[in-house]
Amino acid sequence: MIIAVDAMGGDYGPLEAVPGAVEALRRCSARIALVGDEAVIAKELSSLGIGADLGQRISVVHASESITMDEDPLTAVRHKRDSSIVVGARLVREGRAAALVSAGSTGALVAAGPLVVGRIPGIARPALATPVPTLKRPCLFLDVGANPECKPEHLLQFAALGSAYAAALFGIQRPSVGLLSNGTEPSKGTAVHRQAFELLSKSGLDFVGNIEARTIQSGDVDVIVSDGFTGNVALKLMEGLGQAVFQMIRQEVERNFRAKMGALLLKPALKSVKARMDYSEYGGAPLLGLAGLVVKAHGSSSRKAFASAIAVTARLVEAGVVQSMKRAAAQFRAENAGGGETGGS
Amino acid sequence: MIIAVDAMGGDYGPLEAVPGAVEALRRCSARIALVGDEAVIAKELSSLGIGADLGQRISVVHASESITMDEDPLTAVRHKRDSSIVVGARLVREGRAAALVSAGSTGALVAAGPLVVGRIPGIARPALATPVPTLKRPCLFLDVGANPECKPEHLLQFAALGSAYAAALFGIQRPSVGLLSNGTEPSKGTAVHRQAFELLSKSGLDFVGNIEARTIQSGDVDVIVSDGFTGNVALKLMEGLGQAVFQMIRQEVERNFRAKMGALLLKPALKSVKARMDYSEYGGAPLLGLAGLVVKAHGSSSRKAFASAIAVTARLVEAGVVQSMKRAAAQFRAENAGGGETGGS
Repeated sequence: MIIAVDAMGGDYGPLEAVPGAVEALRRCSARIALVGDEAVIAKELSSLGIGADLGQRISVVHASESITMDEDPLTAVRHKRDSSIVVGARLVREGRAAALVSAGSTGALVAAGPLVVGRIPGIARPALATPVPTLKRPCLFLDVGANPECKPEHLLQFAALGSAYAAALFGIQRPSVGLLSNGTEPSKGTAVHRQAFELLSKSGLDFVGNIEARTIQSGDVDVIVSDGFTGNVALKLMEGLGQAVFQMIRQEVERNFRAKMGALLLKPALKSVKARMDYSEYGGAPLLGLAGLVVKAHGSSSRKAFASAIAVTARLVEAGVVQSMKRAAAQFRAENAGGGETGGS
Repeated sequence: MIIAVDAMGGDYGPLEAVPGAVEALRRCSARIALVGDEAVIAKELSSLGIGADLGQRISVVHASESITMDEDPLTAVRHKRDSSIVVGARLVREGRAAALVSAGSTGALVAAGPLVVGRIPGIARPALATPVPTLKRPCLFLDVGANPECKPEHLLQFAALGSAYAAALFGIQRPSVGLLSNGTEPSKGTAVHRQAFELLSKSGLDFVGNIEARTIQSGDVDVIVSDGFTGNVALKLMEGLGQAVFQMIRQEVERNFRAKMGALLLKPALKSVKARMDYSEYGGAPLLGLAGLVVKAHGSSSRKAFASAIAVTARLVEAGVVQSMKRAAAQFRAENAGGGETGGS
């Protein structure tokens, strides 16, 4: 199995992506194709001084361009045919790589997915999914940013994809699915949410109804479906608020000696809570609904985060997660025939 | 100054609302009119055994009905003319009370506000606003639930109202205003957000651009404007996630003795962080854009939360917050003539 890694993406580019990929070689048995500027990657690799055993599991695929964060994603993907994201996506389409991991522009990945890799039949829009920590087991949250504006049938498709993916990722038989809304009653939300509620109720999925944001962390539901705007806001809020709480604790601790002593003793426990809330431990966010596996790693990914994302991706390839989503989509399509847009381009 | 308090609203009804009102009498100089079932309120009051000094500052206004959480809000407000929310709102409209505080159905308050109290000219939709804790001073966040679906001009009006209210509440000259979106670039968000960005840029308010949810807690902006769906999800997520972090800390602490000792020493610091994140300390959420002051207290308000909400409301009445919003709306209307819907019913 070969995993393509976009060496140019993320806030630190090859500086973190390349050592992250090398670290991943130690964590899983996959081979890695680093995609990007050959000269830069070679320099990074040689500075790491890796042995022949790891060295023969890593290769470089040259890409002369890269897509920056401030470019219009769709235009960039269409015109920069030799960018690391497009080249990496092409490797997946051609079956030369089992998956692509990139910390580059989310917009460019979301555009390159359908355009280059292609969609699963019946899926109109791929969705970004990420596991979020809860008090129980993690729950899969989607869409966290691919589709700011959604139709009810998109939310239904996200639910079907999320359910199949969560089954593979968490090893659960029939994951429960909730719809993120501003109240538990079916009458809550926008018109889109109310119609999605209806479609989900009739879908055959284990739909438990609307979920209020205050209960996400309770971990009572396996999959939470959201439009990409609200999902993105919620994900970033979790990130920011988690950090803010620990910063507030630090502020309070600095005010008195007794608390300082306490913090010292409590440090391992606090660290472990922080780790539980740390997304880099959970791998990246796959773009569900594509005919191949494309995983978005956090833009500020460290080498550790890259290594996690690659190792988790390898596990997902082994579990045949794309195949099971294809099966689920086909079955879902048969059961819900006529139940909405089928996504023909 | 008389403040009307809905004695029947909230998860605990008169059991918390009545002692909360009595506690508020000790915290501010306002008089209080308890609105609700006379017999039940009288029983609660007598069980509290308050002295004549406080007793003469509290009165009861009978309301034979109350609106439950599962009723359709608009229908309930239209038909239950003698419900505690409608009677309380009528006291405000008739100038017999300076404000109404209620922990009852948000939907019913949002419906009763425009219908019974009336709107400020030029404001199409009232918005629920609440201060949220940050690492610096609190920031005003609106709309947190009154309008799940918004037009761009509604978001513009929320910004104008929020700016005037934050100026009065926090005592700042020209509050900075941000728009909650899924990225900082003007191209981010839904079509509604992109149009609102444009209107805000031309508005004359101190608009700083789009705000990502991960920076809300940094406290760099005074007012954050959102549609009511996303705002409600974000507010409830803050509530749930804050609690989840402390519960995770507790789980970790219970696992080992050293951490237990640390937690003991750190307890006052953790308690103080919890208090900073506790919404009940920040009073209720006013419905901005009405011709009078209507404040929504949290549904699960304890007596302490009621007392806070009433005391903060008294301070807002003294600060003439409704008058300054009326002035701001008039000025804003003159400056932005033709810049959108004016809200004529």
